[in-house]
Amino acid sequence: MKVTHYQKIENLIFEEEGAEKVKIRWLIGEKDNPPHFYLRMIEIEPGGHTPYHKHPKEHEVYILEGEGKIVDFNGNEHPLTEGTVAYVPPMEKHQFKNNGKKILRFLCIVPIK
Amino acid sequence: MKVTHYQKIENLIFEEEGAEKVKIRWLIGEKDNPPHFYLRMIEIEPGGHTPYHKHPKEHEVYILEGEGKIVDFNGNEHPLTEGTVAYVPPMEKHQFKNNGKKILRFLCIVPIK
Repeated sequence: MKVTHYQKIENLIFEEEGAEKVKIRWLIGEKDNPPHFYLRMIEIEPGGHTPYHKHPKEHEVYILEGEGKIVDFNGNEHPLTEGTVAYVPPMEKHQFKNNGKKILRFLCIVPIK
Repeated sequence: MKVTHYQKIENLIFEEEGAEKVKIRWLIGEKDNPPHFYLRMIEIEPGGHTPYHKHPKEHEVYILEGEGKIVDFNGNEHPLTEGTVAYVPPMEKHQFKNNGKKILRFLCIVPIK
């Protein structure tokens, strides 16, 4: 069993092309050797965004704090606020944006394979 | 894509034997047909607890609010507070307890298979 606090986990710059002002913490990641999925915490600064992209790995998302938008495959924006839940199926285009004035912070779970 | 708020999702009594004062919301569950894992929100009232048990499915956990304990396979208790992250590997005995004065609320991700 691992029990820790998210603030003890390194907050890395999310280097992917098309990402602006995004950081990531691997709360439960490769080092923990879980069998099926990883738990990540994403932080987007005001004015920042993730890439507008698609990929085979689904996302299950829970918004912890801040305000922003998730852009769907049609380009429509859906508001994100504390307690919002989002499911992005495999190969569905999506983007997370922070158009608020504070950090947008959320959990994003992805499969390993 | 599904975008909703957790409060719109039914809060069900967690009926498992050994559970006391526990409720569960399937934030992303069977109806959403995700390929690998489900995202659940668990609420434990003060004085309540989940069963002290083990099973083949791992747990990845993030504490949203409240205070409590997670009991490990040795019977040792580890404190839970907002922002605590816990990973319970497959077949490791564990229990969640609320010994605080408010609701203990957390996310718990489990594999489908």
